[in-house]
Amino acid sequence: MASGVTGAAPARAIRLHGSDNVVVLVDAVEAGGSLSEAAAGVTASAAVPRGHKMAIAPIAEGEAVVKFGQTIGFATAAIAPGDWVHEHNVGLHDFARDYRFAEARPNDRLLPPEQRATFQGYRRANGKAGTRNYVGILTSVNCSATAARFVAREIERSGVLADYPNIDGVIALVHGTGCALDLRGEGYETLKRTQWGYATNPNMAAVLTIGLGCESFQISAWKEAYGVEDSDTFRTMTIQDLGGTRKTVEAGVAALKEMLPAANRATREAIPASELTVGLQCGGSDGYSGITANPALGAAVDLLVEHGGTAILSETPEIYGAEHLLTRRAADEAVGRKLVELIRWWEDYTERNRGEMNNNPSPGNKAGGLTTILEKSLGAAAKGGTTTLRGVYRYAEPVTEKGFVFMDSPGFDPVSATGQVASGANLVCFTTGRGSAYGCKPSPSIKLATNTPMYRKMIEDMDINCGDVLDGVSVEDKGREIFETMLRVASGEKSKSEALGYGDAEFVPWQIGAVM
Amino acid sequence: MASGVTGAAPARAIRLHGSDNVVVLVDAVEAGGSLSEAAAGVTASAAVPRGHKMAIAPIAEGEAVVKFGQTIGFATAAIAPGDWVHEHNVGLHDFARDYRFAEARPNDRLLPPEQRATFQGYRRANGKAGTRNYVGILTSVNCSATAARFVAREIERSGVLADYPNIDGVIALVHGTGCALDLRGEGYETLKRTQWGYATNPNMAAVLTIGLGCESFQISAWKEAYGVEDSDTFRTMTIQDLGGTRKTVEAGVAALKEMLPAANRATREAIPASELTVGLQCGGSDGYSGITANPALGAAVDLLVEHGGTAILSETPEIYGAEHLLTRRAADEAVGRKLVELIRWWEDYTERNRGEMNNNPSPGNKAGGLTTILEKSLGAAAKGGTTTLRGVYRYAEPVTEKGFVFMDSPGFDPVSATGQVASGANLVCFTTGRGSAYGCKPSPSIKLATNTPMYRKMIEDMDINCGDVLDGVSVEDKGREIFETMLRVASGEKSKSEALGYGDAEFVPWQIGAVM
Ligand SMILES: [Ca+2]
Ligand SMILES: [Ca+2]
Ligand SMILES: [Ca+2]
Ligand SMILES: [Ca+2]
Ligand SMILES: [Ca+2]
Repeated sequence: MASGVTGAAPARAIRLHGSDNVVVLVDAVEAGGSLSEAAAGVTASAAVPRGHKMAIAPIAEGEAVVKFGQTIGFATAAIAPGDWVHEHNVGLHDFARDYRFAEARPNDRLLPPEQRATFQGYRRANGKAGTRNYVGILTSVNCSATAARFVAREIERSGVLADYPNIDGVIALVHGTGCALDLRGEGYETLKRTQWGYATNPNMAAVLTIGLGCESFQISAWKEAYGVEDSDTFRTMTIQDLGGTRKTVEAGVAALKEMLPAANRATREAIPASELTVGLQCGGSDGYSGITANPALGAAVDLLVEHGGTAILSETPEIYGAEHLLTRRAADEAVGRKLVELIRWWEDYTERNRGEMNNNPSPGNKAGGLTTILEKSLGAAAKGGTTTLRGVYRYAEPVTEKGFVFMDSPGFDPVSATGQVASGANLVCFTTGRGSAYGCKPSPSIKLATNTPMYRKMIEDMDINCGDVLDGVSVEDKGREIFETMLRVASGEKSKSEALGYGDAEFVPWQIGAVM
Repeated sequence: MASGVTGAAPARAIRLHGSDNVVVLVDAVEAGGSLSEAAAGVTASAAVPRGHKMAIAPIAEGEAVVKFGQTIGFATAAIAPGDWVHEHNVGLHDFARDYRFAEARPNDRLLPPEQRATFQGYRRANGKAGTRNYVGILTSVNCSATAARFVAREIERSGVLADYPNIDGVIALVHGTGCALDLRGEGYETLKRTQWGYATNPNMAAVLTIGLGCESFQISAWKEAYGVEDSDTFRTMTIQDLGGTRKTVEAGVAALKEMLPAANRATREAIPASELTVGLQCGGSDGYSGITANPALGAAVDLLVEHGGTAILSETPEIYGAEHLLTRRAADEAVGRKLVELIRWWEDYTERNRGEMNNNPSPGNKAGGLTTILEKSLGAAAKGGTTTLRGVYRYAEPVTEKGFVFMDSPGFDPVSATGQVASGANLVCFTTGRGSAYGCKPSPSIKLATNTPMYRKMIEDMDINCGDVLDGVSVEDKGREIFETMLRVASGEKSKSEALGYGDAEFVPWQIGAVM
């Protein structure tokens, strides 16, 4: 039975952002029905199905319909508070094909330094700050993966880490590529950046990179590309130079033992939240992702940006169709054009690979309450909040701007998060509806459930329940809870996936191009 | 100084196959110089550089020049024993563009069953035979990789395997894909076959597959595709069904403990060599690969085929240009046409991915002694020997023919070998010049060094030195040594990479198509 009719409890409604002129109904409502706090005082003028939108303010014909704090379409007729808002009174016209670079650039609020939150982190020599203090073993190619894992195992078995309590662990992050790829292609460039990004992520105190020797990904060329030489926090070696596996493991263990004392000297100190760089992810989305966890994470990101921090939105195929809203929020035309170039690249790439990019709302989406392509893609993009888009980066490219930025990546979680960590993310926030168990090293991942039943079922894997937004907790309050959790986890509190020990198998560099 | 001149030691020469009318010179020779045993009695009629070919029999104008037991070109002038054989007197004309399906199909020698060699293996319920007795943990998606590894770790820590001495180990073979892929594309079909091939490889006594739940690769659809249900040697589960990581690890450990007794009941018995299926690999090739280890492995494969066994050649991009020789050796036109289709697929695939397939001898190749594209690609294909091509398979497709067959794959070793094991390989033979440390589970890998210096330097990783072919050991004798080593390793003797513990990080399913 529909809620909100006379005598029944008011129908639950969610207002996803303070500037929205519509709410989303958690419960169906009949004509004359009353609404919960988010739309208190409004009476339904017609029956509205659950998951659909209802106006809470008058919207004149031609005026923007605002959800997630952003334009999702325009009224094609005058809309009154209490009206059902859907295809019959909302249209997009040519809006979605017009980038209007930087025209809707927001006036971001930025707190003065003395009012900014802090976390307990590790200040690195280059000025960046870590939330963890790992020692990493990377590989140039799959052919040295086992040697790298053997080195990590030997270090663990030796018990030597007991002498270095400030080190969170020695982690071997191996992969399935590194050879038989075109050295002039973007696949190689992407891997090169990814490896460098991990070697320099502020959550890494020191890094050893092991290669085979004859692979396409030459460690010497990689070091030359970044102008770096071996040091007491950066060592490299190959199996062929050293004369085999056993000698390499021996040399790797010896090299790590030399690096551990320096790595252990790092200690936590108060660091402003402006040094946080948070990778935003969603995986295993459901019908609640776009109305609970994603907007709540977006509210947390708006807070993070206010405190001077950085958040990285990614998963390009999933924001397809909403790029026009991001270009309008861009800091300037150049930033906006970079995003459009990424979209064009993906259109070409998927066509060449006989896939497709198509994010138009399906009949099922429409029956569920999604009206326009903008609204659909905003369900994913909502986790990026509402501030100015400050920069657009390729996969694994170092993020140099603070604030809200975009990094290109596939939607596949481990591949996307790997790129974000390579770009500098020292923390990850991951929303999930179906229940992902994802975890990451060296950057801890905080998992946000979109609905209460899944949260309860997978409570050992979930950090925060955003399902209670359906029960009346405001998106703003939820955002504050997420922001505070970011600060605590950044300061050393273990996230659920971290306590379980996740993160050694989730390093998955994006492979582009043919494996030859 | 060149060998072979009057008063100096005879120049070393290698005859790569009994039917060859040319030898390859290990040492340069001057006009009038004498040659070592492989070309004894022949006197050089002109100076021939090292690595180049010299005729050891008369070759009339228009007659085939035979190396590796196969036509690499045709004499463009009459060639006498002792003549240098290269571009000035060899041409290909249109030969390399004419498939002549099955026209040169060899008369394979097949030993009667009672004369066939045997090995000590595990006979499986479906009639196939294993060389190892592993229990596997597979995953549908990267999102369950950590859970799979945790299950393997818990089993190892529990000490329960001490009660099951016939089990070689519990291995978690995880990967970086399984979601965000096109379910109608060949990428998904390839992964589906690969997973099924591992689940049914005769070296696996039992298999547990763990999924997340919401991934593209649905375990239920996979089981339905192969018409299989859970049994006491095949179990499946998902993290979302079970309510999280800890519960999944608990359930996974319990499921394995139930499967271990049945897996332990397998014992070794005498099994004919016709039950061996050997994946052929080369990685880190050098200038010696094509004249030592690859032809020697080819000689071993010819023996294996005589004994009724199966050998799988792969690495399609590396035989490019030699497909015309394989089509002539094909059992029939249908087999030959399948190979041509693979070649066309690769041409299209690399073009779509902006790479290229080009195996023409470079100026450097020519200076080194390679005359034609056939000769160059035969350097890699030589490891397949000289018998009839009995079947052509897609990547990870079950091999159903016995004898010499081809399975499509990239040249990248772990990806190629993963496909071969999925196709049914219960043993791998891997030639290497630069020194690969590759190892595999569940199918042990035997590593063949192409040259003595590398063999000595990496002796802890190399099983057999084929470098001594340069010093006078015949290719036939080397082939016999390799075949005997295959039988010993198949019977339980550990290969070098196996003793070192390789094989947990080398499961790398081929990814085709865009990661979305
Ligand atoms: Ca997503
Ligand atoms: Ca995702
Ligand atoms: Ca090769
Ligand atoms: Ca190879
Ligand atoms: Ca095959």
